[in-house]
Amino acid sequence: MTIDLEALYIDLHRHPELSFQETRTAGVIAQHLTDLGIEFEEGIGKTGVAGVIRNGDGPVVWLRADMDALPVPEQTGLEYASTARGTDPAGNDVPVMHACGHDMHVTAMLGALERLVASTDEWSGTVVVVFQPAEEYGSGAQAMIADGVLDRFPKPDIVLGQHVTPLPAGTIGVRGGTQMAASDGLTVTLLGRGGHGSRPQATIDPVVMAAATVMRLQTIVSREIDPRDVAVVTVGSIHAGLKNNIIPAEAKLELSLRYPDDEARAAVLEKVERIVRAEAQASGAEEPPVIVTDHTLPPTINDVAATTRLTAAFDTAFGEGTVIDPGMFTGSEDVSWFAREAGVPLVYWFWGGVDPEAFAKAFAAGTVEHDIPTNHSPFFAPVIQPTLSRGVDALVVAAREFLGAPAA
Amino acid sequence: MTIDLEALYIDLHRHPELSFQETRTAGVIAQHLTDLGIEFEEGIGKTGVAGVIRNGDGPVVWLRADMDALPVPEQTGLEYASTARGTDPAGNDVPVMHACGHDMHVTAMLGALERLVASTDEWSGTVVVVFQPAEEYGSGAQAMIADGVLDRFPKPDIVLGQHVTPLPAGTIGVRGGTQMAASDGLTVTLLGRGGHGSRPQATIDPVVMAAATVMRLQTIVSREIDPRDVAVVTVGSIHAGLKNNIIPAEAKLELSLRYPDDEARAAVLEKVERIVRAEAQASGAEEPPVIVTDHTLPPTINDVAATTRLTAAFDTAFGEGTVIDPGMFTGSEDVSWFAREAGVPLVYWFWGGVDPEAFAKAFAAGTVEHDIPTNHSPFFAPVIQPTLSRGVDALVVAAREFLGAPAA
Amino acid sequence: MTIDLEALYIDLHRHPELSFQETRTAGVIAQHLTDLGIEFEEGIGKTGVAGVIRNGDGPVVWLRADMDALPVPEQTGLEYASTARGTDPAGNDVPVMHACGHDMHVTAMLGALERLVASTDEWSGTVVVVFQPAEEYGSGAQAMIADGVLDRFPKPDIVLGQHVTPLPAGTIGVRGGTQMAASDGLTVTLLGRGGHGSRPQATIDPVVMAAATVMRLQTIVSREIDPRDVAVVTVGSIHAGLKNNIIPAEAKLELSLRYPDDEARAAVLEKVERIVRAEAQASGAEEPPVIVTDHTLPPTINDVAATTRLTAAFDTAFGEGTVIDPGMFTGSEDVSWFAREAGVPLVYWFWGGVDPEAFAKAFAAGTVEHDIPTNHSPFFAPVIQPTLSRGVDALVVAAREFLGAPAA
Amino acid sequence: MTIDLEALYIDLHRHPELSFQETRTAGVIAQHLTDLGIEFEEGIGKTGVAGVIRNGDGPVVWLRADMDALPVPEQTGLEYASTARGTDPAGNDVPVMHACGHDMHVTAMLGALERLVASTDEWSGTVVVVFQPAEEYGSGAQAMIADGVLDRFPKPDIVLGQHVTPLPAGTIGVRGGTQMAASDGLTVTLLGRGGHGSRPQATIDPVVMAAATVMRLQTIVSREIDPRDVAVVTVGSIHAGLKNNIIPAEAKLELSLRYPDDEARAAVLEKVERIVRAEAQASGAEEPPVIVTDHTLPPTINDVAATTRLTAAFDTAFGEGTVIDPGMFTGSEDVSWFAREAGVPLVYWFWGGVDPEAFAKAFAAGTVEHDIPTNHSPFFAPVIQPTLSRGVDALVVAAREFLGAPAA
Repeated sequence: MTIDLEALYIDLHRHPELSFQETRTAGVIAQHLTDLGIEFEEGIGKTGVAGVIRNGDGPVVWLRADMDALPVPEQTGLEYASTARGTDPAGNDVPVMHACGHDMHVTAMLGALERLVASTDEWSGTVVVVFQPAEEYGSGAQAMIADGVLDRFPKPDIVLGQHVTPLPAGTIGVRGGTQMAASDGLTVTLLGRGGHGSRPQATIDPVVMAAATVMRLQTIVSREIDPRDVAVVTVGSIHAGLKNNIIPAEAKLELSLRYPDDEARAAVLEKVERIVRAEAQASGAEEPPVIVTDHTLPPTINDVAATTRLTAAFDTAFGEGTVIDPGMFTGSEDVSWFAREAGVPLVYWFWGGVDPEAFAKAFAAGTVEHDIPTNHSPFFAPVIQPTLSRGVDALVVAAREFLGAPAA
Repeated sequence: MTIDLEALYIDLHRHPELSFQETRTAGVIAQHLTDLGIEFEEGIGKTGVAGVIRNGDGPVVWLRADMDALPVPEQTGLEYASTARGTDPAGNDVPVMHACGHDMHVTAMLGALERLVASTDEWSGTVVVVFQPAEEYGSGAQAMIADGVLDRFPKPDIVLGQHVTPLPAGTIGVRGGTQMAASDGLTVTLLGRGGHGSRPQATIDPVVMAAATVMRLQTIVSREIDPRDVAVVTVGSIHAGLKNNIIPAEAKLELSLRYPDDEARAAVLEKVERIVRAEAQASGAEEPPVIVTDHTLPPTINDVAATTRLTAAFDTAFGEGTVIDPGMFTGSEDVSWFAREAGVPLVYWFWGGVDPEAFAKAFAAGTVEHDIPTNHSPFFAPVIQPTLSRGVDALVVAAREFLGAPAA
Repeated sequence: MTIDLEALYIDLHRHPELSFQETRTAGVIAQHLTDLGIEFEEGIGKTGVAGVIRNGDGPVVWLRADMDALPVPEQTGLEYASTARGTDPAGNDVPVMHACGHDMHVTAMLGALERLVASTDEWSGTVVVVFQPAEEYGSGAQAMIADGVLDRFPKPDIVLGQHVTPLPAGTIGVRGGTQMAASDGLTVTLLGRGGHGSRPQATIDPVVMAAATVMRLQTIVSREIDPRDVAVVTVGSIHAGLKNNIIPAEAKLELSLRYPDDEARAAVLEKVERIVRAEAQASGAEEPPVIVTDHTLPPTINDVAATTRLTAAFDTAFGEGTVIDPGMFTGSEDVSWFAREAGVPLVYWFWGGVDPEAFAKAFAAGTVEHDIPTNHSPFFAPVIQPTLSRGVDALVVAAREFLGAPAA
Repeated sequence: MTIDLEALYIDLHRHPELSFQETRTAGVIAQHLTDLGIEFEEGIGKTGVAGVIRNGDGPVVWLRADMDALPVPEQTGLEYASTARGTDPAGNDVPVMHACGHDMHVTAMLGALERLVASTDEWSGTVVVVFQPAEEYGSGAQAMIADGVLDRFPKPDIVLGQHVTPLPAGTIGVRGGTQMAASDGLTVTLLGRGGHGSRPQATIDPVVMAAATVMRLQTIVSREIDPRDVAVVTVGSIHAGLKNNIIPAEAKLELSLRYPDDEARAAVLEKVERIVRAEAQASGAEEPPVIVTDHTLPPTINDVAATTRLTAAFDTAFGEGTVIDPGMFTGSEDVSWFAREAGVPLVYWFWGGVDPEAFAKAFAAGTVEHDIPTNHSPFFAPVIQPTLSRGVDALVVAAREFLGAPAA
């Protein structure tokens, strides 16, 4: 009895769960692992699941898929679009959507496990599978490590993972070296003084303080970074006030920062802090702003030798031209922590989820940026096929490449 | 059996209710009206209450008090501080506080009614009392009028009302002519395009659009209004985004605008719209912003002759020097609607709620603006006495001034 | 032989001179004073002229007219429009225009002197006339005082002066109390670090620093001043850089600030300094900005009793309704220094220079602000008559009001 | 008699001339060409000079050096620092400095010509030398072409040139493909309405319009460009107003834009125009801004094959490790026009001018950006040696590489 992967995908898509709340998803996974006869543990790093297939001597290959969804109101118009809601950490009721494709990651991983289980006579070694929570908070991998996942399962010789992305379905994108940026998430609380909306002179207006800060933060990238270097300073959320005629006492900004390495990270963080503090002073704030780092993601660096080896394996399996170098992505990941902590190589690749014809058309028209929804968009939705089958195949090819041959 | 006004005030302060949700407050009022033997109706304009004391021939004097509280987290540290919460129109759970003193308005009004009922042999005419909901939304008076309050009760010859304010307790502030500004409340929705926080180039960032708009809106008052004229453009709330690494698709601003008259109103509204639209264009927005007027408050204009008469009555009752001209206030009120609609004079005065010694000290130090919390501040709290007794007395003196003498 | 005042006005209009460079103007004045037989001295406060008519016992009345023009390119299209150029203090060659009407002031004053000289049998006392340089720099009055004008001439019992303004010709505007605002002129030098336009990261961009500062300065008036108070923060000039592809090392801002009194002055200056310094910090400036006060003008406060007396005299002379209360002007003057220094009353009034029909038409259309050029506009030009004759008459009436009757 | 190159360099450094005003420089060059017996023409493209060494059959190699200086106030403190002044196109008197090292370019070129003349028995072919004016305006090359330089001299088979740069002296930086960015220089005139500084409401303040525009232009790079792409939007100059108390009628911005190719160019120009127009609308401008393109520089693209060949020649001549790939520079050049127009390859390289020890020290400290003055800085000054000798050698090696061997 094989898993109906398309139905599984649709089910997961309809039931997205926010970070560290992936209990239903973990339950579905647990059921399939049980069905496949794979030994596993649940509740690692709160809602994570890890399993192991022991198949004789040979390398230990870790395969990782992330499970969580995002507070995004789905607008794909798909018949199986999410209408789910959840409660975010601030206690707000929010819409929830698999706007980053982790439902596809989980489905492809279960498909690959089924294939690996069915082909144990063709390979030798150990496969550890990690279903990680809270990638979107940048803290799920560390939570699983803190909870002992590296001790409770065989240590990896290599860590592998993949992410669905707006490339044409069928295409795989991977490069040796820095594949994704480092990133920090900051929360900045600007402290003013509240009062009546008709008497601004008696207040220290945090809305104006926040606006001036946002405008000034733009100058980091526009003026202070070498134009040839990669840096992103995004203010992803801004919140202040409850009513038009009350000037609130404070404003909150949530920042997402990106850079290629630790040196750039230090420089950008210093610039952000300098600007945030000075803009509060310009407003005459009586207390300095509070800057909290919510998460820190290392750069995702692919081992060069392993990537070269894997690229060749993909080309062999799927045909020349399947693999492209997508350049460094400014997005970030916490998959690195598993490999960093274990001191072993990582290869993390992207695989396409866009209808190839639609992609080709947009490409010809020069409207890819505009027409093709990206991860985190309310319109993001991979075409189910051939995305799903290529995702399964890629995991199987990759795992087999780094596992051993069967004992003769 | 007299009402324990101080206990009543503390009870109301502990149980603040948001606009159009003043059901407990209305219940307390209804109980007291019943106890006082005053004929009344409930549920006018959703949660409003109005009553009438018919006492022979003579003028019909309307006395109005507003009942609602604000979504402000009380920080007064008072033993009887509010810890209440409520649900705002957007469905958010918010803290609630009587940060504008309407609890004092209701208490003083009940105290005055008790006195008027006890002294019917000393005056002649009709008193209509209006406990109005949703002054803070600027729509409660219109709701009661739409619900027929002017037809269901004797029509006024004059409308009277009062507001507690950060003057020294004991002092009354009133002026003929424009006493409070006209005001509009707007909601502006800026439409961008969402996406991943690491790929700003694929989005139209509404956070930056909002920040630039807020900065530009400052130039209306700083550059486009005659420095001798009164105008206020407050952005009381700004909201966009749910997460640092998702660029949201839109941002919402709530604006509170103030001006002395309709001509200035038209000019400022045009400037706001011009700036909001142009800033969206500067951002490359594909759709224009949506601007909605949530409420419109007329200027509060005191009848000159009636104000002169009332000022003399206050001076006689409380001593020369009690009444000051506080200048035009930039705050706004919807009490005018009752008088406008009926085509009769209005007098609306302020009475002080600050400990006179504390006020004198701050005045001497030049720190009134800084030390004395104003209405809508989380620190706003009148001293109970002599604020309360002066509020009761002022209503009684004013009502009696415009009612008739008892039939001989 | 009487002075041809219209020809004189046209001559002065064609030959405007910048502040402290009014040598030709002073020469023209000296010639007329000589012709009128008035004793005078030149070169007081560099280019000032003062004269005296001694006519027996009685009060000493000072009449003051200012002489200087502005670096404005005249665009009136008048036949007698200025094409003059001058050298400003920075050494730049600039267009020069009597865009503030001081040519009218000088002409009316000479006309009034001629009338006073011709009527010495009708009055008694002493007239001192002061032709002041550099009113536009705010430093000409102080320069004349420093040069001893109060010691070299009989001390005043009262100081009188007038300014042409965009009221209908014929109308006089004056009020007791604060007639014009206090003002400071500041130069702010923002210090960055220069470099190649293609390598912003190696610079500290003073253009961005200046732009952020200008935007932030708007918030003083929009957020930090009581909306009922008068305050103006104008950045009248901004200069940085010589070439598109060189990021300069510094930027210069020139600010003009206005307020009604010394307390407001101190508050606004502190806010300006706070913002300027904080914005430099936000830019990461290695040196703080340099803030220099170029001039300080006191408020122009009319003596209440003398103003009442003069208003009555104007009404008698010109008919009821001639004098209006124009409210406080946000413009500033240095005429006050003469009265302040001498400790005597001042009356300073405005007289209209706009064709009354054009004014009435614009007023009816609500387009006065738009259609009627104001002082300092390149389009500013009083209609010669009846502006000139009313200006002469007003000076004569005012001087005669405060001089004595002839000895019997 | 050989040229004293160091003395020549110091002489040129002391006598910098602005673009299209390089008459003294051209005279010095002409004298040396005469001394060297090189046939030449002057006044090509106003102040350009071109010469030719005809030495038998073989390729025609063009060597180009630019001659002009910049309006920068030298602050190097060098004994031979410039104190020169010049008149810029707007008629302003400005300081002038060889802040871009073109004095070094001219000197090295004359040194190389002397060596080529002295070694005619070692090579065969034709050398055309071009001393170009007005590189800093981006229009000198086109001016020489318009003036027929490509017809008046033998057409090139290859065009070569070099630029001194803040690399360690001795090092050469060159790469095949895009070596320098494309660039446009724009002048933007923002049209407001002038008036008195105390009456902003009667004006449309162009200083605020300019400031808002500068702040908004930052968002092009920070939000609208792929963080992995190169783009620069510099506002190199901002000018408005003559006096603190006059609000001017207009403001001028000079922009320098950079991008790697024509597609990016079109996109950035569109964004700039969108923002400039929208910000004028936000200000309520009655006329749209005027945007003028002052110059357009193509990307400087090195021929890949020729660059590989030249790199090998440099390594042979100067030792392995001398040549580095400096990456794409965001600076721009007009040298390309000669090669583009002739349809032949270009190689344009950089050579270091920084004391190697100082560079190594700054590099170790991570302070290169901060400590090493870059081109266009008032502190930019190459160390004379070994910069000069390496510059001469590089030109000789490069010319000889592409010229022919002597006829046997």
